Amino acid sequence: MEPTAGRFELHKVGVSGIRKPLTVRRSDRVVTLTTDFEVAVDLPSTRKGSDLSRNAILLAEIVDETVVRPVPSLEAACVAIARALLERHPYAQTASVDARAEYFLRRGIVEERKSFEDYTLLGAARSQRTGSTGPVAVTQSIGAEAVGMTACPCAMETARDALAQEFPQLRDEALQALPMITHNQRNRTRLVFDLPEGAEVEADELIETIEASQSSPTYAILKRGDEAQMVIRAHRHPKFVEDVLRDLLRRVASEYPKLPDSTYVRARTVSEESIHKYNVVAEHQASLGELRQTSAV
Amino acid sequence: MEPTAGRFELHKVGVSGIRKPLTVRRSDRVVTLTTDFEVAVDLPSTRKGSDLSRNAILLAEIVDETVVRPVPSLEAACVAIARALLERHPYAQTASVDARAEYFLRRGIVEERKSFEDYTLLGAARSQRTGSTGPVAVTQSIGAEAVGMTACPCAMETARDALAQEFPQLRDEALQALPMITHNQRNRTRLVFDLPEGAEVEADELIETIEASQSSPTYAILKRGDEAQMVIRAHRHPKFVEDVLRDLLRRVASEYPKLPDSTYVRARTVSEESIHKYNVVAEHQASLGELRQTSAV
Amino acid sequence: MEPTAGRFELHKVGVSGIRKPLTVRRSDRVVTLTTDFEVAVDLPSTRKGSDLSRNAILLAEIVDETVVRPVPSLEAACVAIARALLERHPYAQTASVDARAEYFLRRGIVEERKSFEDYTLLGAARSQRTGSTGPVAVTQSIGAEAVGMTACPCAMETARDALAQEFPQLRDEALQALPMITHNQRNRTRLVFDLPEGAEVEADELIETIEASQSSPTYAILKRGDEAQMVIRAHRHPKFVEDVLRDLLRRVASEYPKLPDSTYVRARTVSEESIHKYNVVAEHQASLGELRQTSAV
Amino acid sequence: MEPTAGRFELHKVGVSGIRKPLTVRRSDRVVTLTTDFEVAVDLPSTRKGSDLSRNAILLAEIVDETVVRPVPSLEAACVAIARALLERHPYAQTASVDARAEYFLRRGIVEERKSFEDYTLLGAARSQRTGSTGPVAVTQSIGAEAVGMTACPCAMETARDALAQEFPQLRDEALQALPMITHNQRNRTRLVFDLPEGAEVEADELIETIEASQSSPTYAILKRGDEAQMVIRAHRHPKFVEDVLRDLLRRVASEYPKLPDSTYVRARTVSEESIHKYNVVAEHQASLGELRQTSAV
Repeated sequence: MEPTAGRFELHKVGVSGIRKPLTVRRSDRVVTLTTDFEVAVDLPSTRKGSDLSRNAILLAEIVDETVVRPVPSLEAACVAIARALLERHPYAQTASVDARAEYFLRRGIVEERKSFEDYTLLGAARSQRTGSTGPVAVTQSIGAEAVGMTACPCAMETARDALAQEFPQLRDEALQALPMITHNQRNRTRLVFDLPEGAEVEADELIETIEASQSSPTYAILKRGDEAQMVIRAHRHPKFVEDVLRDLLRRVASEYPKLPDSTYVRARTVSEESIHKYNVVAEHQASLGELRQTSAV
Repeated sequence: MEPTAGRFELHKVGVSGIRKPLTVRRSDRVVTLTTDFEVAVDLPSTRKGSDLSRNAILLAEIVDETVVRPVPSLEAACVAIARALLERHPYAQTASVDARAEYFLRRGIVEERKSFEDYTLLGAARSQRTGSTGPVAVTQSIGAEAVGMTACPCAMETARDALAQEFPQLRDEALQALPMITHNQRNRTRLVFDLPEGAEVEADELIETIEASQSSPTYAILKRGDEAQMVIRAHRHPKFVEDVLRDLLRRVASEYPKLPDSTYVRARTVSEESIHKYNVVAEHQASLGELRQTSAV
Repeated sequence: MEPTAGRFELHKVGVSGIRKPLTVRRSDRVVTLTTDFEVAVDLPSTRKGSDLSRNAILLAEIVDETVVRPVPSLEAACVAIARALLERHPYAQTASVDARAEYFLRRGIVEERKSFEDYTLLGAARSQRTGSTGPVAVTQSIGAEAVGMTACPCAMETARDALAQEFPQLRDEALQALPMITHNQRNRTRLVFDLPEGAEVEADELIETIEASQSSPTYAILKRGDEAQMVIRAHRHPKFVEDVLRDLLRRVASEYPKLPDSTYVRARTVSEESIHKYNVVAEHQASLGELRQTSAV
Repeated sequence: MEPTAGRFELHKVGVSGIRKPLTVRRSDRVVTLTTDFEVAVDLPSTRKGSDLSRNAILLAEIVDETVVRPVPSLEAACVAIARALLERHPYAQTASVDARAEYFLRRGIVEERKSFEDYTLLGAARSQRTGSTGPVAVTQSIGAEAVGMTACPCAMETARDALAQEFPQLRDEALQALPMITHNQRNRTRLVFDLPEGAEVEADELIETIEASQSSPTYAILKRGDEAQMVIRAHRHPKFVEDVLRDLLRRVASEYPKLPDSTYVRARTVSEESIHKYNVVAEHQASLGELRQTSAV
């Protein structure tokens, strides 16, 4: 055995950018997710190297085989991989799996103009040995990212004031509710739940929560009338990134009653401003318990 | 000498993704452009390989030395490199240089709120031997990409019609000129001129031509009143990508009288739609002569 | 009708970055390709704008429906879309479709260690009206990109010479065939065929042609003995990018006897050098007829 | 004042992807870094929105002005911005600045073949009010990323064993030290120090530490003899990612005696494998005190 004095343990050794088709069984259909994985285990100071070929073998066994036997979800695949990593790397105490996949849902502004919209799914799992002979504890994360639209509430007010110089009718009470011009942007919002063992949630619900928090979701197919309807809707729900994020957190606090308070929530929203070359961002992290407490005031 | 029967000539052999700081002297200042180069020469069937180390040496000599002796422009550097490539690769008949750099200009909606806005510069050069002993012919390209804003003219009309149901005042003549809500987007427009030998143009002029063709340029610093002014301006110049591109071509036809008809113009505009997850694009290529002819009708 | 004097025709107006799951029936299985589309039509000077919503509707009809009725290939989907574009945009004379998809094949250095390897597929189609009432002509392109490995032949020689100073045994005839150290790199090679109407080829064949032209294909799962075997194989087939490209062209010239001479071949290979921070590239374009002629010498 | 019951505080509201030229004075020269900033402050529940225009104004004042008065370093600029953020956003308790810049150093395998090599610099700062009237505490981070080369030690051994079947001379003692073929890769290593207030370190030193930990640094210009020398050097220092990371941590523990034990060290190394399509990674985080303790054993 090699001398290990002065040798560092390492938190993570593994493979990244390994792409695989993952077949997932949803309630109503079977879908194949083109998925990008990073998997790793820790390396104790007593060991020179991690046996990296085991990672690729294990991913092949678990992921490639979903063609024949689909898994229930991206995060379920992550959990299975995180467990297997500790089995195949007996020297490791912890394992991590991070996955990112493109995902499609049939959506539309009206039933007859539904088509596939693209989203991003995020799955992750962390496994840890509890003592040298104890069972393995595994936690999982599930996340989603959805692109929607925002309309700025501030420019709406200042534009109304500026235009009222030229069009005094805008000061009439009858026109107070007229949606006013402002700037709109493509908004990209991400929501991730770190779940305690046993807790479950559907990625599709996360996507719905995100889209409900933007000024409007967006759709591939819009006829002229649909476009007007979406524009009016967005301008009647003008939102700063701060508003998108707070509305998201409020929904999270109230719409997931089955999730325990110990669920940890991470959210980030990015607006690709039309009036600037840069983006505007807001982010927050808190336990679901904290969010519920604030929300209940 | 190796047998070359059945060996293919190759159009291009070279290096790509080679990054260098290029120092350029502008009218009023010296700037350093972080530049990405691809340079290549052709390879005749009589030769097994291209001497690639010469490319890196030559780039070091020409580009690294601009720290001491700045060049007048990105495209001037490309021309110098394209000439040197044929000197260093005596077996080659043609050489190509493609460069892309980030560029900054001080701009502002008003003088006192100017700051650096970021753009992309594109430079290129092609050199060719005219016979085995003749002189080398070199052409150059100069291009720029600028991000601005567009407002959709179509949704503006349909939104007005839809809102007029609820707000009949919108049908009053006095309110016909009131800018109406629509959707806005970040618009990215590229303009490139392939110049015959001897012709010259300033990259800053291309950026001005692009920005004048969008619904509005965008700025880093906008106070509340500025934002209203920019939003109103954009909504008073609503444009489809088709309009951005045609306005751009019209300006190109009229604003560059010194450039010869043989200048070749390539333009592409991309709107990152706020109401869709995908982009809308328009592109066109034509000689400046053709554009002038159409424009003159 | 609006006045059109002085209005420019535009070569392309359409949508880009529209992502869809495309279901394709292969000989032995059904696969879903996460595909990125750009589709466009030309716009005559007589028309103010292109009806962009038709593009999204048509993509939904053709692509989304492959969930139920898979298409035979990515390029077949492109052809169907290019035809439909001219039907839905009666004012257009030409239409273009460009698609890019991630693709997986089960591959392995030995049968028992096969797993999914990732590749890129490229499909395209161009449609054109032949006269105002004539039939529509459609051409298609099919391409693939594969990542493999190269070993540099030049450093192999110079390293042998340098090491022979220290290890004179290397000059013995018995050790002349000993594979010598050099530098290896990740190599990314793309091959595209522009096919005349009626011609057909399988994307999997293109991937095989590419991988046979690199120093070695690469695999996800390699046990220690496999790794040695692959390293030896790559060092016994050392190749410059020039060699990869020429070997590729030679194979193309001989291995596709069913394709007509008018097939146009485009190839580019990029080595992500381990000894430099930049890449080395080679590219060539020629008709299959020209390649066959050179190859036959 | 608006009611704030039930309104969430937010950890971060700001701007991202804002690009600026930052002029920095180094010991021997003045350089302009093309820099990408993300800046943000927290938002208390008592406030509806963050005043985002102040961020752009402040960046313009601090960064744009370095054209005239260069700052000593990227991280010094981050610290100045983090302080100014709390001055301009009096409602905020914390501010964060993250910056990423391309950076060039003149390097060469020999003095006469030096040229600019490209690196990435990472700077960051966090500021926090200590009580409502107390002074502001600021910490800074400084990091660098460098691309080099690794040679795999494992394949070297297995290749030797496999080749010894065919070339028994390899078993001679005289040839034991002959560098053996293996696979090489482009390696990308990042090192970041989170510094307590008052501590200082030079980015150039971090780059030297990284390059010394790889099998070999890489250079733009290599003549044939240089290439052989670099290949031999890399094969005489074969390293797994685990070795690169541990060597890096060992150097960090011994080569920065002026930095306090409370300095926090974050390191990640990625090898873009030539024998796989995916990457191999290793990462670790620890206080400098911990690293010194392990290293001293």
